[in-house]
Amino acid sequence: MFLTRTEYDRGVNTFSPEGRLFQVEYAIEAIKLGSTAIGVKTKEGVVLAVEKRITSPLLEPSSVEKIMEIDEHIGCAMSGLIADARTLVEHARVETQNHRFSYGEPMTVESTTQALCDLALRFGEGDEESMSRPFGVSLLIAGHDENGPCLYYTDPSGTFWQCNAKAIGSGSEGADSSLQEQYNKELTLKEAETIALSILKQVMEEKVTANNVDIAKVSPKYHLYSPSEVEEVISRLIFLT
Amino acid sequence: MFLTRTEYDRGVNTFSPEGRLFQVEYAIEAIKLGSTAIGVKTKEGVVLAVEKRITSPLLEPSSVEKIMEIDEHIGCAMSGLIADARTLVEHARVETQNHRFSYGEPMTVESTTQALCDLALRFGEGDEESMSRPFGVSLLIAGHDENGPCLYYTDPSGTFWQCNAKAIGSGSEGADSSLQEQYNKELTLKEAETIALSILKQVMEEKVTANNVDIAKVSPKYHLYSPSEVEEVISRLIFLT
Amino acid sequence: MFLTRTEYDRGVNTFSPEGRLFQVEYAIEAIKLGSTAIGVKTKEGVVLAVEKRITSPLLEPSSVEKIMEIDEHIGCAMSGLIADARTLVEHARVETQNHRFSYGEPMTVESTTQALCDLALRFGEGDEESMSRPFGVSLLIAGHDENGPCLYYTDPSGTFWQCNAKAIGSGSEGADSSLQEQYNKELTLKEAETIALSILKQVMEEKVTANNVDIAKVSPKYHLYSPSEVEEVISRLIFLT
Amino acid sequence: MFLTRTEYDRGVNTFSPEGRLFQVEYAIEAIKLGSTAIGVKTKEGVVLAVEKRITSPLLEPSSVEKIMEIDEHIGCAMSGLIADARTLVEHARVETQNHRFSYGEPMTVESTTQALCDLALRFGEGDEESMSRPFGVSLLIAGHDENGPCLYYTDPSGTFWQCNAKAIGSGSEGADSSLQEQYNKELTLKEAETIALSILKQVMEEKVTANNVDIAKVSPKYHLYSPSEVEEVISRLIFLT
Amino acid sequence: MFLTRTEYDRGVNTFSPEGRLFQVEYAIEAIKLGSTAIGVKTKEGVVLAVEKRITSPLLEPSSVEKIMEIDEHIGCAMSGLIADARTLVEHARVETQNHRFSYGEPMTVESTTQALCDLALRFGEGDEESMSRPFGVSLLIAGHDENGPCLYYTDPSGTFWQCNAKAIGSGSEGADSSLQEQYNKELTLKEAETIALSILKQVMEEKVTANNVDIAKVSPKYHLYSPSEVEEVISRLIFLT
Amino acid sequence: MFLTRTEYDRGVNTFSPEGRLFQVEYAIEAIKLGSTAIGVKTKEGVVLAVEKRITSPLLEPSSVEKIMEIDEHIGCAMSGLIADARTLVEHARVETQNHRFSYGEPMTVESTTQALCDLALRFGEGDEESMSRPFGVSLLIAGHDENGPCLYYTDPSGTFWQCNAKAIGSGSEGADSSLQEQYNKELTLKEAETIALSILKQVMEEKVTANNVDIAKVSPKYHLYSPSEVEEVISRLIFLT
Amino acid sequence: MFLTRTEYDRGVNTFSPEGRLFQVEYAIEAIKLGSTAIGVKTKEGVVLAVEKRITSPLLEPSSVEKIMEIDEHIGCAMSGLIADARTLVEHARVETQNHRFSYGEPMTVESTTQALCDLALRFGEGDEESMSRPFGVSLLIAGHDENGPCLYYTDPSGTFWQCNAKAIGSGSEGADSSLQEQYNKELTLKEAETIALSILKQVMEEKVTANNVDIAKVSPKYHLYSPSEVEEVISRLIFLT
Repeated sequence: MFLTRTEYDRGVNTFSPEGRLFQVEYAIEAIKLGSTAIGVKTKEGVVLAVEKRITSPLLEPSSVEKIMEIDEHIGCAMSGLIADARTLVEHARVETQNHRFSYGEPMTVESTTQALCDLALRFGEGDEESMSRPFGVSLLIAGHDENGPCLYYTDPSGTFWQCNAKAIGSGSEGADSSLQEQYNKELTLKEAETIALSILKQVMEEKVTANNVDIAKVSPKYHLYSPSEVEEVISRLIFLT
Repeated sequence: MFLTRTEYDRGVNTFSPEGRLFQVEYAIEAIKLGSTAIGVKTKEGVVLAVEKRITSPLLEPSSVEKIMEIDEHIGCAMSGLIADARTLVEHARVETQNHRFSYGEPMTVESTTQALCDLALRFGEGDEESMSRPFGVSLLIAGHDENGPCLYYTDPSGTFWQCNAKAIGSGSEGADSSLQEQYNKELTLKEAETIALSILKQVMEEKVTANNVDIAKVSPKYHLYSPSEVEEVISRLIFLT
Repeated sequence: MFLTRTEYDRGVNTFSPEGRLFQVEYAIEAIKLGSTAIGVKTKEGVVLAVEKRITSPLLEPSSVEKIMEIDEHIGCAMSGLIADARTLVEHARVETQNHRFSYGEPMTVESTTQALCDLALRFGEGDEESMSRPFGVSLLIAGHDENGPCLYYTDPSGTFWQCNAKAIGSGSEGADSSLQEQYNKELTLKEAETIALSILKQVMEEKVTANNVDIAKVSPKYHLYSPSEVEEVISRLIFLT
Repeated sequence: MFLTRTEYDRGVNTFSPEGRLFQVEYAIEAIKLGSTAIGVKTKEGVVLAVEKRITSPLLEPSSVEKIMEIDEHIGCAMSGLIADARTLVEHARVETQNHRFSYGEPMTVESTTQALCDLALRFGEGDEESMSRPFGVSLLIAGHDENGPCLYYTDPSGTFWQCNAKAIGSGSEGADSSLQEQYNKELTLKEAETIALSILKQVMEEKVTANNVDIAKVSPKYHLYSPSEVEEVISRLIFLT
Repeated sequence: MFLTRTEYDRGVNTFSPEGRLFQVEYAIEAIKLGSTAIGVKTKEGVVLAVEKRITSPLLEPSSVEKIMEIDEHIGCAMSGLIADARTLVEHARVETQNHRFSYGEPMTVESTTQALCDLALRFGEGDEESMSRPFGVSLLIAGHDENGPCLYYTDPSGTFWQCNAKAIGSGSEGADSSLQEQYNKELTLKEAETIALSILKQVMEEKVTANNVDIAKVSPKYHLYSPSEVEEVISRLIFLT
Repeated sequence: MFLTRTEYDRGVNTFSPEGRLFQVEYAIEAIKLGSTAIGVKTKEGVVLAVEKRITSPLLEPSSVEKIMEIDEHIGCAMSGLIADARTLVEHARVETQNHRFSYGEPMTVESTTQALCDLALRFGEGDEESMSRPFGVSLLIAGHDENGPCLYYTDPSGTFWQCNAKAIGSGSEGADSSLQEQYNKELTLKEAETIALSILKQVMEEKVTANNVDIAKVSPKYHLYSPSEVEEVISRLIFLT
Repeated sequence: MFLTRTEYDRGVNTFSPEGRLFQVEYAIEAIKLGSTAIGVKTKEGVVLAVEKRITSPLLEPSSVEKIMEIDEHIGCAMSGLIADARTLVEHARVETQNHRFSYGEPMTVESTTQALCDLALRFGEGDEESMSRPFGVSLLIAGHDENGPCLYYTDPSGTFWQCNAKAIGSGSEGADSSLQEQYNKELTLKEAETIALSILKQVMEEKVTANNVDIAKVSPKYHLYSPSEVEEVISRLIFLT
């Protein structure tokens, strides 16, 4: 009986008999295979830290971009399919530039996040910009606008949440537990850097170096740390263990 | 014999041999997995109360929006897929603004509800705004127009009903029974707040706090309660038990 | 051998080897699950009476619309999927208004019925207004034009018939038998009201009240009975039993 | 081996390995379920006679139209899906009116028949006017043009033949045999009426009345017989048996 | 292994693993079910002769058209689905008329044949004029242009060949053998008529009459023989046996 | 496990799990069934020679065109589906004429070949000119432009190679071996004619005559040999054996 | 349970239950069958070296293009389906020319690579330029812009990485290991030539000649080595072994 029902409803974006959207669930699986990314919000700004998997010593580490700028007040860290993330980020960049051009002021972080999620939601529709499958990527969107610093988390279903701290990717489960233990709202930006990197270190299989992690902050402008700035944060971890 | 019949009629939006639309039924299953929402109509206005599932202490409770404003005289509570609900609400906001612009007066609550349901009904059609599957969300639409306060309930089939009180989501069965017992047309808005929240409390697994419920009213304007206003309603529940 | 044949001809709107259109037959099944509606034509006008299933005491009875006005000289009762019926009625309203605007006179009831059925017939075509499946609804269309009162009955195949009296929905079989026994062409409108309601009463599981039935007439204008007018008709039934 | 071949060629309008078009054959089955219609050509004009299945005494017999006018010099009788026939007839009416408007003269009967068949042939093409399946109807097209009276027979494949006499529908096999026995080219129109109705009577399960048959002639103009004219033809049958 | 391959390449117009196009082969089967047609080229012109299957004595023989004029210098005989042939012939008529209009001279027979085959080749493409399946018909195209008389043979794959003589349809195998025996380039048109009809007679199940065969010639203009002209050719056959 | 994978990726133009495009491979099979064609490049020009399968003595040999002119400086020999080849050649003719018109000079042979292959590559795309399946044909394109004589070989995948000599079709394997043995860059055009025809003779089942082979050269203009010119080349073969 | 899930999500570009995109993985398999290509970046410029599979001595080696110029400052080496690579390269050539025309300066190498990957990512979308399947090709893109020399590597998923050295194709595994051993950032261009060719030699089955390898450099302009320049590099290898 159950099997005959399934014959009535096939498609990329259709409900299963239990009310589930399998393509979205499968896309979420794609993210569980991705590298880990962590975001931490403080009163002074937001810190993003990501693991970079450098599969070969001949790869240029700086070309593995897992943290990208959207606008001068918004950046994002990603886990999952990088090519998909680039499409979303490119879309968001156009949206924020259009907003600046039309209204003479920066787009809020929430509106930017909403614009990204609208695109993600409509997969399988045949629209010009939408894809034929869900975007296989989660984003941590860090920004600073008239409401101060903020951190959003998006998933392939086109849903988003505002968080104080959040981890995504293959190590997200352990990292989220650690974040809950160590997070408090009075953290300084510097403390947030140390916490984010120390947690990332725990879930990474390799030794942390300036080559295999990236760190960025939005405080109030987006800034991607130089290798020496990353080294400086790494150096603090020694005192923690 | 039965199986061979099924081979003639596959598609997202087709009848089964018993005259059923399975994708719509599966979407309704999606709502049974959703958080509970309650609406109560009084002569003074309409109250909406929803459960918010805060899966992590690091999540910003205010970013989990389960009650949204459509126009200054209409709000809605939702259960099911939040991203789908946002698309419907966005559609309704455009419709109500267009109506104000074209006719210089607010759109009636019924017309707004009808506009939402027209969009929901035509899934699988390939139109620009419609989705390739049913919208996996139920709405409680509270409003106030020339006919006074009113409360509508919509489901994924694009059908709507006008109600005095209604619960949707995973706890809707128990909540509906309680509403039938406690509802009468002479309730004050304040009594409605207390009843909605006390019933929500019964079906929630966690302790009710200003973090995990939202309350709003339309009386005659939409107003989302602040945490302290929610606290005040919670405090009344003590005297009930 | 038979099974291999079926592999040549799948689709929403295709013939089976026996020359049948299964999606249309399945849609007709959907109507057998619907509430009962009855139409009776007299020389003075046409009466429509429908059962309304009020699933909860908190539902607003007047919001369960099973009889709707198409134009001031045409009304219709429906059984099946209400959201589908609304699309058909909305289409007919536009057609009749366009006709008045273009020709300065009301559209005939037959032309209006034909327009409805043209839309119903072309399901699965991908046209702008047509649906991807048959409309899961039957209509009883009551009207009054230059040819006097008339009553049409439509089914999901896009076919229509003119009738003197007709019942549709879950109780239609028993109701049709009763109509054949009690109908004659010399009935007054008042007698038709009594007959329609008494037959509806027989096939309804619940006690008839002003809340769970609706009555309307076209004589020569469409008029939906107020609760007190319905009560008056109900009161006559006492003398019948 | 045979089965694997079938996997290469599925579709609504595709050949089977034996060179057959199954959807067309299935549509022809639909006509075998239809009511019987008979056409007879004489030098004076063409007679059409059809059985009308009046399933309920409450049905208005005149609303069951199985003979329709296409233009003042062309009429047609039908068997199969009435809603499909109406689409074809409507198409032919537009074509004949356009022809009159463009050329100031009536369209020939053959051109009209060809126009109908062009539409029927192209099912499954996605064109604006064509259907997604074959038209499930056969027509007997009676007309009178510069070549005198003529009778055409069309089937769902879009093929047509010119005939002296022809029966279609569930009783066509027996009726065709009788026509071959009784037909000769010297029949008067009155004799043709009597023959057509007497043969129809043989294949009908019910007694022939003015309610359950329709008769029309094109001689040289289309004329649908009134009930009293039909009664007059029926009265002649008494002398035959 | 073989079966899993087949899953990669389904469609109306796709290759099988052996490099075959099954829909085209199936369409060719449809022609093997058709009536026989024969074409013979002489220096004086081309003769076409076809069998007409008159399934009922009430059918008008002249309405079973198996030989049709394309332009005054081109005619064609057909075997297979008549409705498909009519579409091709209609297309060719438009092409030849357009050519006359644009260039002030008749279209060559080869160009006309090429235009027909271009349409036949592109089935399943979704173009405006093309069909969703192969045309189930073979044509013998007889013509006369600046290069003198010529005869072309087309099949459902859109391929064409120039021939001296050719038979198509259910009796083509035997008829082709006979043609090879009896054909020589010095035949007169009259001899070709006799040969074509005598061979047709051999493969027909019924006695040859002016009712069940058609003969036409292009010499240098297209001319369809009248019944008496056909009778004259039939009368010659007596002396052959 | 393997089978379930295949369910994710069906289509006319999709990769198999091993990275293969089956429709292209199947189309290549179609060519292995075709007649043999040979091309040989010399400093003086390029020679093309093809086998023509004359299935019936009544077929006009000159109408079996396996070598066609594209422009006055380009010709091509083909093996596989002739109707497909004609579409490609027609496309190339338009491209070369457009180039002459736009730039006042002949199109280079490589650009012409590239234009053909662009069309061949994009099968299954739904574009206006592309087909729904691969073109089932290989071409040997002989030309002469500013770079002197050249010979290209194309296959159904849309790939092309420049060659000194090449054979395609059912006898290509043996013919290619012979070409490698006998080819050298200093061949005269006359020697190339003899070699091409002697190799063709080896792989043909029938005796070589002016009827069943065609020869053409581009030196520097395209020229198809007359029967007597072909006879002359055939006569040389006697001295070879 | 697993199998029934798979029925919900079929398509060319959809996720498997484990979050994988099979068509992309299969396309990557296609590349593993391709010839080997190697890129090495030095401070002086970038060297590309490729294996050319010359399947027949009659093939013109220079027509097997595996290294192509995109713009005067960008070249690329390819492995996989050559016809696909040509489409990508043609797209990139148009993009770089448009950029020069619009902005009066060369496009950066990263932007060019991004443009290629945007096209590759959107397969299966039905856009004008995109394909119905992934592009079955990997590219090594060598360029020189305001940031100096750079080398990018792209795969069929539309992802790209910047590398110091990289090998693709059937011999890539062994070649990559050798590159990691021998590469350092201080290599001269000449040393890079020697290293690239010596590694290519190791993974090739045949002896290296000027016929079966191609070498190019971008330093700072694209230059494809002439046979004698290739010979010169080959001659150095003797001293290495």
